[in-house]
Amino acid sequence: MVKEKLNKLRIMMLENGIDIYYIPTDDFHASEYVGEYFKSRQFISGFTGSAGKVLVTADEAFLWTDGRYFLQAEKELRDSSIQLMKMGEKGVPTIEEFLEKRLKSGGCLGFDGRVVATSFIENLLKNLKDVDIKYDRDFIDDIWNNRPPLSKEEAYLLDEKYSGESSESKIKKIREEMSKEGADYHVITSLDDIAWILNIRGNDVLCNPVVLSYLVISMDKIFFFANKEALLKVKPDNVEIRDYEDVYSFVKNLDKNSKILLDKDTVNYAIYKNIPQDALIINKVNPSTYLKAVKNPIEVKNMKEAHIKDGVAVTKLMHYIKINAGITEMSELSLVDVLESYRKEQKNYLGPSFEPIVSWGDHGAIVHYSPDEKSNATLTTGSFLLADTGGQYLEGTTDITRTIAVGSVSKKMKRDFTLVLCGNLELAAAKFKYGCVGANLDYLARGPLWEYGMDYNHGTGHGVGYLLNVHEGPNSFRWKVTKDTKHCVFEEGMITSDEPGLYITGEYGIRCENLMVCKTTGENEYGKFMEFETLTMVPFDLDAVDTAYMTDRQVALLNDYHKKVYENISPYLNEEEKDWLKEATRPIEK
Amino acid sequence: MVKEKLNKLRIMMLENGIDIYYIPTDDFHASEYVGEYFKSRQFISGFTGSAGKVLVTADEAFLWTDGRYFLQAEKELRDSSIQLMKMGEKGVPTIEEFLEKRLKSGGCLGFDGRVVATSFIENLLKNLKDVDIKYDRDFIDDIWNNRPPLSKEEAYLLDEKYSGESSESKIKKIREEMSKEGADYHVITSLDDIAWILNIRGNDVLCNPVVLSYLVISMDKIFFFANKEALLKVKPDNVEIRDYEDVYSFVKNLDKNSKILLDKDTVNYAIYKNIPQDALIINKVNPSTYLKAVKNPIEVKNMKEAHIKDGVAVTKLMHYIKINAGITEMSELSLVDVLESYRKEQKNYLGPSFEPIVSWGDHGAIVHYSPDEKSNATLTTGSFLLADTGGQYLEGTTDITRTIAVGSVSKKMKRDFTLVLCGNLELAAAKFKYGCVGANLDYLARGPLWEYGMDYNHGTGHGVGYLLNVHEGPNSFRWKVTKDTKHCVFEEGMITSDEPGLYITGEYGIRCENLMVCKTTGENEYGKFMEFETLTMVPFDLDAVDTAYMTDRQVALLNDYHKKVYENISPYLNEEEKDWLKEATRPIEK
Repeated sequence: MVKEKLNKLRIMMLENGIDIYYIPTDDFHASEYVGEYFKSRQFISGFTGSAGKVLVTADEAFLWTDGRYFLQAEKELRDSSIQLMKMGEKGVPTIEEFLEKRLKSGGCLGFDGRVVATSFIENLLKNLKDVDIKYDRDFIDDIWNNRPPLSKEEAYLLDEKYSGESSESKIKKIREEMSKEGADYHVITSLDDIAWILNIRGNDVLCNPVVLSYLVISMDKIFFFANKEALLKVKPDNVEIRDYEDVYSFVKNLDKNSKILLDKDTVNYAIYKNIPQDALIINKVNPSTYLKAVKNPIEVKNMKEAHIKDGVAVTKLMHYIKINAGITEMSELSLVDVLESYRKEQKNYLGPSFEPIVSWGDHGAIVHYSPDEKSNATLTTGSFLLADTGGQYLEGTTDITRTIAVGSVSKKMKRDFTLVLCGNLELAAAKFKYGCVGANLDYLARGPLWEYGMDYNHGTGHGVGYLLNVHEGPNSFRWKVTKDTKHCVFEEGMITSDEPGLYITGEYGIRCENLMVCKTTGENEYGKFMEFETLTMVPFDLDAVDTAYMTDRQVALLNDYHKKVYENISPYLNEEEKDWLKEATRPIEK
Repeated sequence: MVKEKLNKLRIMMLENGIDIYYIPTDDFHASEYVGEYFKSRQFISGFTGSAGKVLVTADEAFLWTDGRYFLQAEKELRDSSIQLMKMGEKGVPTIEEFLEKRLKSGGCLGFDGRVVATSFIENLLKNLKDVDIKYDRDFIDDIWNNRPPLSKEEAYLLDEKYSGESSESKIKKIREEMSKEGADYHVITSLDDIAWILNIRGNDVLCNPVVLSYLVISMDKIFFFANKEALLKVKPDNVEIRDYEDVYSFVKNLDKNSKILLDKDTVNYAIYKNIPQDALIINKVNPSTYLKAVKNPIEVKNMKEAHIKDGVAVTKLMHYIKINAGITEMSELSLVDVLESYRKEQKNYLGPSFEPIVSWGDHGAIVHYSPDEKSNATLTTGSFLLADTGGQYLEGTTDITRTIAVGSVSKKMKRDFTLVLCGNLELAAAKFKYGCVGANLDYLARGPLWEYGMDYNHGTGHGVGYLLNVHEGPNSFRWKVTKDTKHCVFEEGMITSDEPGLYITGEYGIRCENLMVCKTTGENEYGKFMEFETLTMVPFDLDAVDTAYMTDRQVALLNDYHKKVYENISPYLNEEEKDWLKEATRPIEK
């Protein structure tokens, strides 16, 4: 099956003088998650993992994927003739290195220019001398029968009581930035930016309430390129609506002396190449990326509300697990359903903000695990259930991880849980001067684990959108600093996750995740001071805590947090749940 | 007097077609401290502060200096006709901005090319279009009668039992780096690098045991440009000795196709311009800067010894102050003498490693204060004595600050002292993964102060040389991150100061400073882990501690440290001092 598809592709490559064809896992918008229409790499290779890139040559084919997917890829690529390139393993070249070696002078690389970022191709071409590229045709489309259509889900406008700011006001700010840069046009292709700017939401990417579209802003006009079927009930004010595909001809016809602000890391290569060659490109992060990261007071107020609703649902799940452990059969998937039903009880709940990670025991150590019918595990006792889930509400987006002891857990497991928890509490309690970036504060979350010679192999925190993508920059917590690191100063209103973890392969995984909003606490002769306020309101499982690994201060921080959880969540629980929460949030002593 | 000198300078400027003449406070080597010969700025302006730059135009003159010196400069510049430019104050242009505005197209800037770094001039010229420069003559020399001669103090070789590595071995490593960069020559002008490479020490800069010299390394030769009088008793092996000034003609005669490794931040502009234009310049930090920052095991062992000797001296000073407070008259300068006498009792003590900062009461709030006959304050009681001093020993360089309560101090003073102390203890106790840089760890030192909305306006720590400069990069603790920040990963063997502080203008200053060496603690599946070992061995003043502001952990850290201080220092004290130290290092409880 795969071999047949590869053969069809190779015939076209031959006809078009292409030596190597490149098929990534991206849509036209550099989205983190992509719709069914865009799963070309899965179509051509049979590999269903969320990350992977394929290169096809005249007689070979290769799939690059990362450690999460090595086993799955080996299985799914069997009999495909595609060779697995294990990213990060010794001796395995990167795609760039591979192309440098394989593409001889005069060779030709083919790809669909709409599914690759401009900066990726530009960097690639820097090291490929005298190599030709063909980027203006999607060869996969020619061989993909019954390709799922492009999503055209109905879009809706987000009321200002939720967004807190009109689209006009947002565009005014963007035009101010354009003006500073001397830009005549601003081309935006990232779907979260467009949704935020227009106060529009949709359903074209799983869990991400965005609308497949492009946006071009000039100093006096706004051009919105989207599928008309999606906009039947919606017409953003003062916006000229064009067909989704028309953006390519539109940019081709821009005045050749234009100055165009765009972000080469997100704008696809086909759009970029369609822009007249003489136009001046101002390559910068979209102003809206910074603007939307700083939540306005109404968004913050709403987010707090969303987190109480979400907290009620997740607290109910904890209660459900605790009272049913050892009595009622529970599986990863059944708990996904239970949690979803609790969230659905909440007003203005729209759906999950990402695919739920509910993992029992050793599944918890697989950081990106999501249960499916095949992997679904039944809970026994004596281990951790790790639940990393989130919801989309009209009042905002949530993302929470709780690690729950089912039955009694070992002393070592309690130690590990407690160290992770202490990291979460320490970071949440940071008081810092304005100007701090993630690299200044990340130590707080890792310190307790580092003290014991342990660590987790992921960032400590990411920015979160407002009823938008659960992963949004530019704010984050990361400790590693390189000369290319883009540092983001924490501003009042930024919302960031705080999620240290620990993963013991084959045994269990632990992660404690809350969302926090950054606030200014005051200004004096020493400068402006900031802190975080925790939004997430769900107890941490005291059954897994060993105070021997906590300082007095950490015990006090946990008790303070639990007091707030009880105050905020208990009014929405029945008597039984309320009693349970009282006990689950009791003050502890060292 | 100043006016007369300015007039003489202006006549020469006129004769030579120079519109503005620039006089900084630097030697030919971008040293932090300079010898008497190099104090041209002081000569021309009368301003004696350690930092300042002068620009002279046809009818005006300006001195730029920083906040430390505003009062002093105002006084010293009176009647000089020189205008004070208060750096950092609103509306005050930087020198660069000033020159951009004043130097019209076709104008000419003059300066002695030997006293300015190449990168400074290159950056300046980027923004000065069509401006001419004259850099090949020191006009100050023409008008400076009785100029102090260049220092030619006798140099000596540092035995390998102190340096821990032969010069041959060091040069081999440098040639390996040259080879990686494809360099034929490496031009080195920074005096600490040269002293380290050749295992040579001297006395040409106050407190810095360096030799005025230049070094050029090729793949098979070493050219050492120094004053022959300084080298009467010393001849480094395999080194061709040339006259100090000959470096300029030497680089002029390098093959024009040479590839030359040099650091534009330290190599002066005159040298740089003498290099044939076609030569390829590889602009990088000197390899020796990294190599010497990583102390070898013998250096570390020696440094520990130096710190015990120095600890004995400073502990004796603390004891002296405590028993004499209110009884014997003590002044800042008398205490400088007392401490120096204690240090001189130690074997292999060579002198101070920097000008002692011994400041009583409100003087402590002036961060760069050093007492002189005029400012010398007599101690009373009820305030802090801040003593930031250091020594040069054959076994290494020390740098220590202790803040000592004289008489009883207020509750607020104790709180402030305790918060600073806690920052010192927390940073010293960091356990971290290999890869961490200063920006990852600085929070530990500031956190306790930031929690109370306070801060100090200087870095938390700097690298320290081995019987060399007390300030040496590249390792440091700094929290502010910009895109230009050069981050340095902590390597085993790097020695860094840990010195948080707090300064209450008009009242008192607090600083707690120890030196620490970085060590690897182990490696496992999570990575390589590191920690610091404190070298400095002197008690922190318990009379100024209020445990209400400490966590249990911080109390334990202080007690652990004090236990080590007693163990290491008490064997070298008399019975009275020993009894005192026992009490001064007693375990405390919260």
